[in-house]
Amino acid sequence: MSVDLAFDGQGLLPAVAQDADSGAVLMLAYVNREAVERSRETGFAHYYSRSRDELWKKGGSSGHTQRIEDILVDCDGDALLYLVDQEGGACHTGYDTCFHRRIDGEIVGERVFDPEDVYE
Amino acid sequence: MSVDLAFDGQGLLPAVAQDADSGAVLMLAYVNREAVERSRETGFAHYYSRSRDELWKKGGSSGHTQRIEDILVDCDGDALLYLVDQEGGACHTGYDTCFHRRIDGEIVGERVFDPEDVYE
Repeated sequence: MSVDLAFDGQGLLPAVAQDADSGAVLMLAYVNREAVERSRETGFAHYYSRSRDELWKKGGSSGHTQRIEDILVDCDGDALLYLVDQEGGACHTGYDTCFHRRIDGEIVGERVFDPEDVYE
Repeated sequence: MSVDLAFDGQGLLPAVAQDADSGAVLMLAYVNREAVERSRETGFAHYYSRSRDELWKKGGSSGHTQRIEDILVDCDGDALLYLVDQEGGACHTGYDTCFHRRIDGEIVGERVFDPEDVYE
């Protein structure tokens, strides 16, 4: 059984990934129905890339996968919260989280890998 | 000084509110530039309602305000993270967080107020 999800006109809704252990908010991306189903079936976070117009598995190329611990739905059914075990760092820039900057520009995240070692 | 923000075609981007103390993810809503500016200027979380087509202050009618502790920006500048001190409960249904249900429907959040006492 599943909660009804309120996908938007493009068949998408935002999903927030949170580290299940530390509580750190890691990233926000979009999912379609297939991405949600694949995340549940495989136990690894999948998203939908709006720019590439395709389903993607987080860490598929970098190895920085997110093992799904739980998926929560908000009150309106139009946003998801993936609770995950993050392998490596969540951000393609090498930081632990995509939210590593204050709005005034100050860096507050931690660099956990060198992107040049991970992405060709 | 501010990081450049990548608002979408409607002038909006998603903002996630996280409890600065507990780390709980409380809600996801949308902001336009004015909502971000008002949040920074007043120290209280403001959002933009897509359904009502207007700026709103969280807790403006319920009293369940969110005092802004910090605002973080993601790597692409197209999502925000509000770190807040939540007054009362974040969800209009009376739960501590809007993310109080598992995707299979099980309730995991905590009821912290009776909506009938708060909303007329």
